[in-house]
Amino acid sequence: MPETRLAQWRERIDLALAAALPSADGGAHRLHAAMHHAALLGGKRMRPLLVYAAGDLCGADPVALDAPAVAIELVHAYSLVHDDLPAMDDDDLRRNQPTVHIAFDEATAILAGDALQTHAFSVLADAPVADAIRVALMRTLAQAAGSAGMCGGQALDLAATGNGAAIGIEALEHLHALKTGALIRAAVRMGALCANASEADLARLDVYAGALGLAFQVRDDILDVEGDSDTLGKTAGKDAVQDKATFPALLGMQASQARLQALAARMDDALEPFGERARLLAALGRQAVERRF
Amino acid sequence: MPETRLAQWRERIDLALAAALPSADGGAHRLHAAMHHAALLGGKRMRPLLVYAAGDLCGADPVALDAPAVAIELVHAYSLVHDDLPAMDDDDLRRNQPTVHIAFDEATAILAGDALQTHAFSVLADAPVADAIRVALMRTLAQAAGSAGMCGGQALDLAATGNGAAIGIEALEHLHALKTGALIRAAVRMGALCANASEADLARLDVYAGALGLAFQVRDDILDVEGDSDTLGKTAGKDAVQDKATFPALLGMQASQARLQALAARMDDALEPFGERARLLAALGRQAVERRF
Repeated sequence: MPETRLAQWRERIDLALAAALPSADGGAHRLHAAMHHAALLGGKRMRPLLVYAAGDLCGADPVALDAPAVAIELVHAYSLVHDDLPAMDDDDLRRNQPTVHIAFDEATAILAGDALQTHAFSVLADAPVADAIRVALMRTLAQAAGSAGMCGGQALDLAATGNGAAIGIEALEHLHALKTGALIRAAVRMGALCANASEADLARLDVYAGALGLAFQVRDDILDVEGDSDTLGKTAGKDAVQDKATFPALLGMQASQARLQALAARMDDALEPFGERARLLAALGRQAVERRF
Repeated sequence: MPETRLAQWRERIDLALAAALPSADGGAHRLHAAMHHAALLGGKRMRPLLVYAAGDLCGADPVALDAPAVAIELVHAYSLVHDDLPAMDDDDLRRNQPTVHIAFDEATAILAGDALQTHAFSVLADAPVADAIRVALMRTLAQAAGSAGMCGGQALDLAATGNGAAIGIEALEHLHALKTGALIRAAVRMGALCANASEADLARLDVYAGALGLAFQVRDDILDVEGDSDTLGKTAGKDAVQDKATFPALLGMQASQARLQALAARMDDALEPFGERARLLAALGRQAVERRF
């Protein structure tokens, strides 16, 4: 059962994350407590699960996968802490918990995000894999997280906010390919890199991951319209209030749902050559498309 | 002449930095322009010069030193952008220029800092050195920049601000050993790592770098009292206004000057076994102790 396997990995990543973070009662204890708050209080762990599932598909040693799984979740967690800041999306609620700058303060939130990002690279530098793989993992993560990836996408998103009607569907897809897509593609690639996957397999998996990243965002936009804050664990309906460019705003709800199904089909096609070995990645794809929160 | 050599390296690092940064007219052009503003407009380039000088002492290929020199300056630049934010030190002026959140906006400053940090690791992942050295460079930089280093020190500094009299000299030295010392030690170590320096040489250089880091901060505190904003390129007299713990506040000016001279002597002792080969590091030590800005 894919679900059992995914649940085991979800336990595994939570333990690995807790073990990787600095103790919350060290010298800079307030900073460390904020890092724990950001990284350990819930979350779907989609990116680490993608690392494990892609690595499993390619035949990686599970022990090798913990470091990239932890690293990518640390980068994701840092990005949420900074995105929630008053100067950015100004969110008070995340995963049904106060955001870091609410639970602590703004300065601590900035620093905790900074330190979480740094820690991701520290974890990869000590990953129990060959140096060549460590370097490939660090390069993949850095390129996905930087100004040509996640940070660049967030900058485009800020520029488009309050200006919802002014960007077209291609610009919106480009924005999300950077903002959320780059890290999701990196997660899949990092898992496969730990198994020295072939270029051909890396390319197939990248098609899957690209479709997954976009599907995840289309679903996110739909849930922001349809969902309620309690289920989502964050403030619903914010996109319309902030006049954000979203798929439902640009395409309408019906066409957004159709887009989601087309992306699901693209994922299936990309995974088809792997047969049964791809069942866990396929399950993660379905979860992204069907999720309620 | 050490000064000629240092001036050549200062030109070299400026060219290498400009070449390493993403073009300012790409898609996320405002973000990229902010990254340029943060990294290219002046600065003493002390950390890159330490990379070159330590590498030179140990016999490293100059071509190998560009990547760590760029990476450490990118981390330093990111830390200044975030430290200057309203929620942190709230500074409008840096290197006689408006700080990034003044010249652009707060959200862009947060993102530019984030992306500069990421880019440092990207640069190291592509450094023209063996994978084992790349990994060692990334580990050194990540440990120095993270919550057990620079970020941890900044957290301790925030906790001590507005509370100047409440921490003792040992706590102040510990704070600065993390906040500025960790990165300065990393700069020296990274240069030496590029030449596969021996553990004994790394240990000697670390004594020098530890003394230099502390001397740099003592001098910084003295200049904040004695200097004027025009010469400093940043707001003078801020420490007293913010009731910051500083060496002059805790020890008085005379004892702070004596401490500075003792640290200069410790640097000379640590470099003594290297003889004439250490003249560039010695010159950088003197500059830190005697600088007017």
